[in-house]
Parts: sequence; C-alpha cells; structure tokens
Amino acid sequence: MALLVVGSIALDSVITPFGETADALGGAAVFFSLAGVVLHPVQVVGVVGSDFPEAHLGSLARRGVDLAGVERRTGESFRWKARYSYDLASRETLETRLGVFAEFRPQLPPQFRDARFVFLGNIDPELQLSVLDQVRKPGLVACDTMNYWIHSKRDVLLELLRHIDILMVNDSEARELSGDWNVYRAAHWILGRGPRMAVIKQGEHGALLVDSTSTFKVPAYPLQEVFDPTGAGDAFAGGFMGYLARTETCSFQNLRRAMVYGSAMGSFAVEAFGVQRLEQATLPEVHGRVRAFRDLVHFDLDGDAP
Amino acid sequence: MALLVVGSIALDSVITPFGETADALGGAAVFFSLAGVVLHPVQVVGVVGSDFPEAHLGSLARRGVDLAGVERRTGESFRWKARYSYDLASRETLETRLGVFAEFRPQLPPQFRDARFVFLGNIDPELQLSVLDQVRKPGLVACDTMNYWIHSKRDVLLELLRHIDILMVNDSEARELSGDWNVYRAAHWILGRGPRMAVIKQGEHGALLVDSTSTFKVPAYPLQEVFDPTGAGDAFAGGFMGYLARTETCSFQNLRRAMVYGSAMGSFAVEAFGVQRLEQATLPEVHGRVRAFRDLVHFDLDGDAP
Repeated sequence: MALLVVGSIALDSVITPFGETADALGGAAVFFSLAGVVLHPVQVVGVVGSDFPEAHLGSLARRGVDLAGVERRTGESFRWKARYSYDLASRETLETRLGVFAEFRPQLPPQFRDARFVFLGNIDPELQLSVLDQVRKPGLVACDTMNYWIHSKRDVLLELLRHIDILMVNDSEARELSGDWNVYRAAHWILGRGPRMAVIKQGEHGALLVDSTSTFKVPAYPLQEVFDPTGAGDAFAGGFMGYLARTETCSFQNLRRAMVYGSAMGSFAVEAFGVQRLEQATLPEVHGRVRAFRDLVHFDLDGDAP
Repeated sequence: MALLVVGSIALDSVITPFGETADALGGAAVFFSLAGVVLHPVQVVGVVGSDFPEAHLGSLARRGVDLAGVERRTGESFRWKARYSYDLASRETLETRLGVFAEFRPQLPPQFRDARFVFLGNIDPELQLSVLDQVRKPGLVACDTMNYWIHSKRDVLLELLRHIDILMVNDSEARELSGDWNVYRAAHWILGRGPRMAVIKQGEHGALLVDSTSTFKVPAYPLQEVFDPTGAGDAFAGGFMGYLARTETCSFQNLRRAMVYGSAMGSFAVEAFGVQRLEQATLPEVHGRVRAFRDLVHFDLDGDAP
C-alpha cells in the first residue's frame, strides 16, 4: 500500500528570533516525506535544480524516502526566504524564486503508479489533477492548496475537489475558499464540493477533522520552546497519511488516531530549525508523543452525571 | 459546600453583526452565577444602582441564585457598551460607566462566610483580598483579573496570588502578567507565584488547565452559529466552579471534568445574546454537551503501536 507525495523540494532561508538558516533543506514534499517515512515508506515526485546539494537528497534517501520520482533539471532550485515575527505567530515572505519549479510537470515513474495513498501537496491544481490521472487506482487522496490557487485557479481547484477524499488546508484558506469566516461552516461548504472529509489546520491551535456527521479536534502539543514553524503543516500531513498507509484502514477511530500522529509530527517539526528534528524522529518517540497527546486531552465521564 | 462569587452586576449594551442589546442583564457575577447554578447553588456578592430593573434580579432569583449579598445603592448601575467585529474575534469598548460599582466595598452576609468554593471575579485586587478575608475557611479559591489591574495594581495582585488556588485568566492576560508570550511558560510563571493551578482561557480556541506536572486542554465547542461572545469566560468559570462544588472533590480527573463543564457553559453563553441561552440551560442539556465534548476529542490508542 504505497504512499505517494507530490510537492515542492526547496532551499529554505528562514529567519526567526532564535536564529536563521540559509539554503536549508525544505519544501512541502520534504517535510511530508520525512514525517511520513517514520511510519511508512514514502515515494516522492518533485524537481530540483542543478544547484541542489546532493547531501540534501542523501539525507532523505538515508531515511528511506524513495526519490525515484525526483527529477534533476538544469537551472536553479526553488528557493524561499521568510522572516517570522517575535512570537512566531506570523511570517513575511521575503523572496520566492521558483527556478526549475516553474516548469515542473510531474511524471510518475511506472512503479509509483500503483500508489494507494496519495498526497497532492500545494502546487498548481492542474498539476495535481495530472498526478491523479497518472495513479491507476488511488485508495485515498488528500490534497493541500493555498490562497494563490484559490484566487487564480478557482475553477480548476473546484474540479479537483470532486476527485479527492480529503481537503487539508489551514483555517484562513478554508475561509477564503468558502467565503465563510466560521471555520465549521467553511468545512461543511468544502464537504458539499466533493471531499468526504476536511482537515483544517489551525497552527498553534491544532487541527480539525470534519466529516458530514462528526467533528474531531486535536490541539497542538504544548511546547514551551518553538524554534521554527516552517513545515509543520506538511509534517502534519505526512504523519496523518503515513499512519493511514501504515494501518491500511480509514475507520472512524483510525482517522482520529491519524490526526494525532499528524499532530505529533507537526510538533516535532517546530522543535528545531527546518528538518533537523524530524529527520531524527524515531517510531518510539512518535508513539510516546501520541500517548502524551492522550494525556493532554483525555477525560472520563463520571458515573454521577452524564 | 457553598459556592460564592463576587463580581460585577451590569447593564450591558452590545452590538454584534447579528443584532444589538440595550441595558441587558450582564456582568461577571451574573454570567458566573447563571452558569454555576445549573450545577450547584450560588451565592452572589455585588452591587446594583437604584435604576437596576427588579426583573433582572428576579430572573436570577428564579434560577435559584442567592442574592442576599447584592446591595442596592443610590445611583446609577454599572453600564458597559461594546461593539464586536464582523467575525466576533475582537471587540471595542464604547463606554464604561462604573456608577455605584466605583464605590463597591464587598460585604459578605454572615451566612456567606462559610463558603468553601470561592470565585473572585475581575475587580480591584484589594477588594478581592478583602472578600477572601471575610471567608472563614475557604476550600478552593479561584480568581480572575484583567490587564488594567495587572498594570495599575501589580503588587497587590501578586500578593493576592499567594492566597489563591487557581488563577483563571485569558491568554493575553497571562502573557501580560508574566511578560512571556509563550502561554505554557506564562502558566508556569503563574504557578511560581502561588497558585497551584492556572486556567488559561483562549476564547474560540478553548482553555488550558496547567499544574506543576500536567497540562489539560479542552477545545471550544464547534458552533456554526455564535451570536454574542460576551460573558463566555465568566460562564466558563461558573461551570468549572459549579461542577467542583457539586462533586466536592478536586481530584485530577474531576478537575478535568470541571474544565469540560466550564467549556459547556461557555458554549451555551455564546449561542444567544447576553444571558438568554444560559438562563434556559438545563442539567440534562449540560450533561449532553459534556458528552459531545467527549466525542469531539476522544481517541483510542491502538493495540499495534503505542
């Protein structure tokens, strides 16, 4: 039951109050796969430029990520530079240089076309559709997007929604897409457009899983030290999809657990710069954090009352 | 095991995108007691002016709230007027007229001095200390405050913290008090000043209970319609303290349940203008919402993994 991700592979330069990085390994497909691979093998489809450090790809390969779908093209790699506010609650993008990513036309190697779990990272929805066309018999398809596509390619995005199982976006994206500021109504608007489920990421406030009959909320893990929020959402997605691929079921309880595994991975992601913490994470550590999440939210109904 | 609250009794004029009220029943002690009394008898200490409608006091009395500690003085009642933003996420205070509240010197009737559960609503910390002095043998004391007192009476507030069990504030107040933007570090700063527990209210994102060894998070209830956030924090406090007074124990599990009862009451408070929904709430409805909270956050660890 292979797990496939398509998305950006980038060189990130990030400034936070606690330090900065330059041309560090980053990108949605990278955070996704480093999180997912702790739970299940991950196949990556993406593109890098001629300047992309071989060592960066090496650190993905060492973790067991299958890079057969990563194309190296002549030109510059995708670069992203951003600065976070003092409390890490907001960030300003200082520079985006698409480089070879501008001409990215995802091609799945033949052995990737049997993937059952598919995550369409935030790229042009036309490309997301083309990836989906190349997968023979997807079992569960989740998809991210961003405000840029919501505005510039709304029709294609709405067409895409008819072909996916889960839309996974942050709360501001859900609001912009639906035109509704109430996040629960926004989630139900999304369900009316095709997906069976909506996952709404809320940053430091956790994440929601909404289907037509229920809502599940997992808070963010209480961290006294956060160093770099970059990639938390993609690490969440990697943990979520990795857990589903590992356990091969999408039962009600399993989807909830997948939300918690996603949150655990998101919490690891922000504990150090870039991918530093994620690429060290072990399966026992992840299980341990999932148990900590249970301690965080668990309460018993009493006999007296309900 | 009597439950005592001291705080404001007000005439609220509130403008939201969905309508407005004028001189409606409001104030911290009112929201607290209407929420708490669903679970346990509540004794109120407060003051109203000569213009305060008898019908407002009547609706508290009809719910069983003990008003023996409510003094009626010659002069105007406390009035508060505010306007909420389109998404209810922020509000602007348009007018505050203290009236008789400016000269409020809380006096406990003799029969209130045996209260075991005490909630010191947001008033001058000197008055909060004087109330505490009048209670013979308080079993559990919780206290609210606000930015105004944090800045203008910081020393008295810090003295007060040495005499209470639980400080219950919203996240921005916790940050201002501690000088730390990380809410978990802020909570531990508070614990270092006296209280055994800190309850951090986070509005639409729920609430945290932090003690020296654990953190409990309850999200806000997912509501597709919110009409008026006024009083949600005080209704939360009423549900929290009401549940503890009802069950007479402060065990680890009971404190967590109290957080959920508080959140249930907060969710009722915001579903209609002012106290309208709260004053209709029944015990079976509250139990039902507590069960809904459990459905919202519950997940099982699987056998396979952790």
